[in-house]
Amino acid sequence: MVLTNDYGHGGDVYHNRVTLDFSANVNPLGTPKAVKRAVAQSAEKLAAYPDPYCAPLREKLAAVHGVQPEDIVCGNGAAELIFQFAAALRPKRALLPVPSFSEYDAALASVGCETAYFPLARETGFAVTEDLLAHITPETDALVLCTPNNPTGRSVAPEVLKKIRARCRETGTWLLLDECFLDLTDAGAEKSVIPALGADERCFVLRAFTKLYGMAGVRLGYAVCRDRAFLSALCRIAQPWNVSAPAQAAGEAALDCRDFVAETLSLIAEEKAYLLRSLRALGIDVLPGDANFLMLSGVPGLYDRLLRDYGILIRSCANYRGLGEGDARIAVRTHAENERLIAALREIYGHA
Amino acid sequence: MVLTNDYGHGGDVYHNRVTLDFSANVNPLGTPKAVKRAVAQSAEKLAAYPDPYCAPLREKLAAVHGVQPEDIVCGNGAAELIFQFAAALRPKRALLPVPSFSEYDAALASVGCETAYFPLARETGFAVTEDLLAHITPETDALVLCTPNNPTGRSVAPEVLKKIRARCRETGTWLLLDECFLDLTDAGAEKSVIPALGADERCFVLRAFTKLYGMAGVRLGYAVCRDRAFLSALCRIAQPWNVSAPAQAAGEAALDCRDFVAETLSLIAEEKAYLLRSLRALGIDVLPGDANFLMLSGVPGLYDRLLRDYGILIRSCANYRGLGEGDARIAVRTHAENERLIAALREIYGHA
Repeated sequence: MVLTNDYGHGGDVYHNRVTLDFSANVNPLGTPKAVKRAVAQSAEKLAAYPDPYCAPLREKLAAVHGVQPEDIVCGNGAAELIFQFAAALRPKRALLPVPSFSEYDAALASVGCETAYFPLARETGFAVTEDLLAHITPETDALVLCTPNNPTGRSVAPEVLKKIRARCRETGTWLLLDECFLDLTDAGAEKSVIPALGADERCFVLRAFTKLYGMAGVRLGYAVCRDRAFLSALCRIAQPWNVSAPAQAAGEAALDCRDFVAETLSLIAEEKAYLLRSLRALGIDVLPGDANFLMLSGVPGLYDRLLRDYGILIRSCANYRGLGEGDARIAVRTHAENERLIAALREIYGHA
Repeated sequence: MVLTNDYGHGGDVYHNRVTLDFSANVNPLGTPKAVKRAVAQSAEKLAAYPDPYCAPLREKLAAVHGVQPEDIVCGNGAAELIFQFAAALRPKRALLPVPSFSEYDAALASVGCETAYFPLARETGFAVTEDLLAHITPETDALVLCTPNNPTGRSVAPEVLKKIRARCRETGTWLLLDECFLDLTDAGAEKSVIPALGADERCFVLRAFTKLYGMAGVRLGYAVCRDRAFLSALCRIAQPWNVSAPAQAAGEAALDCRDFVAETLSLIAEEKAYLLRSLRALGIDVLPGDANFLMLSGVPGLYDRLLRDYGILIRSCANYRGLGEGDARIAVRTHAENERLIAALREIYGHA
């Protein structure tokens, strides 16, 4: 929760006059019908506490990923697990390539961790390169990587990630690897590090239902990690009932929605190409991201004009470490919505 | 979440063969229709992130309690707020009358707090008395009190609570006052400490929707506290979206269910009297509690026999600090359910 005026993310459709929300990176197709149905049905059984083991959900996830249910923890959204990771590990020193999702920084700060920010270079499209390796030392208790990264949309190349994991193994560094947007990229499932996780590897792989299944409101994320002692410690610092019954029901239903996922990926591929083309035609500098969103450098005041004149909410990235005024992130939406955004931008950029 | 075989609470209807659940202290009338409807309707809007400010809900709660919305934080169930309280305060030394809800102990332990257990005496019906005062010292960073207490059902007498609060003010001790069951007692609303909270009082009053509104599955609790700096700190150590959209919708709907609350209280009063009478008629030692549950001392093996032979789940209190084998807690249920419990007990106790 946020008390007052402290919210630094996208998706606040409650306190802005929003007609179109491009600020939250959620599936443009919304929520699968089966998931909505599961949540609606859960309304009939709310008096019971949720299953503290999330047993059927973890079994289903284990089958998807080819791991054991004991390798999986579920959370009240992936965001909760970021804070739980930090609270369970209590790293003294962490390494964080930036720009990236601000909740990593907030979670590390919440346990008094001293975080070194590794600036990703705009000139190289904010790519994570082997330059990072030298900064991972035995003093680095934790490294946080997001692939594809939020807000840049850039994935860590497999060969670079392999070297980073090897380096972390040498230095005893825990890797929090956020794969929350991976399933929204092409061949995402094959790119996951999960099947390759070593039995003793200090790697906490974060995954979400939020984005792919349009379930941001109901909160469900999970992590895969082979270090069971760490997962035990992580569970001990939180309540037993953090994953609500509607969320568990929604997650179980979501995992059966394979056609929905295929349809989503094809829509995103097509619409991302459309957005890239159209933005570039307007002369807007835009990064070719791998996920369901794009980062662009807009004219100053773009965020305000879109919201005020068009009711279009985009994510200003001005408060991301390493970014500035004009940097913004837009979600890939449906064609009709994307056309409305482009039409608005065309007016703002004077190509009307 | 709980990984494996680590769950020490009632309400696990998922991994036991349960026909009747007396182990969870949830409203015997279940969930109000309006709350179910609100959750079912929220299923249509799951793609959006929940309101991070919980604005309409906090406004409604503020009106109920005669405080400002800024005095209120919402949580993913009251249980989450117990852990957040501990993590935000990081007390070095805490005082905890026992027996009590084990999540206090777990939350304090999760931040390395040294907890002194103050044993409540069975002979006095586990009452909190002025004897506690001398144990609150300037070294006591936090005191946790639950009124009425779980699992004893005993309330702290108003004059004792007043002295405890005064003593905490003298010693600079934070009081976590758990009123989660207060609305399930007679004249509960009038007994709350909230209207009397001093502007600078270090008191964190915990409240839940879970029990009164049969909403355990959807997770919603809140706390009232006049120390806004503390509430800010508490919010900074957690994600912005911890209260799901279904939970917020459910909470807003619940606060309009006044008839439901009145009906609940009248049912509980009647059925508690029935249970007390019937248990005593069987010669079972039972504590006259103020809440929607009763603590009893049963024959050894009672828990197992009820579950195995009758499918009735009660809450064994053997794992409560200060209690032992045979101690058990039963929720007050509907008359038909209570009769079935009594019939089973009659057989077990040989009065069949």
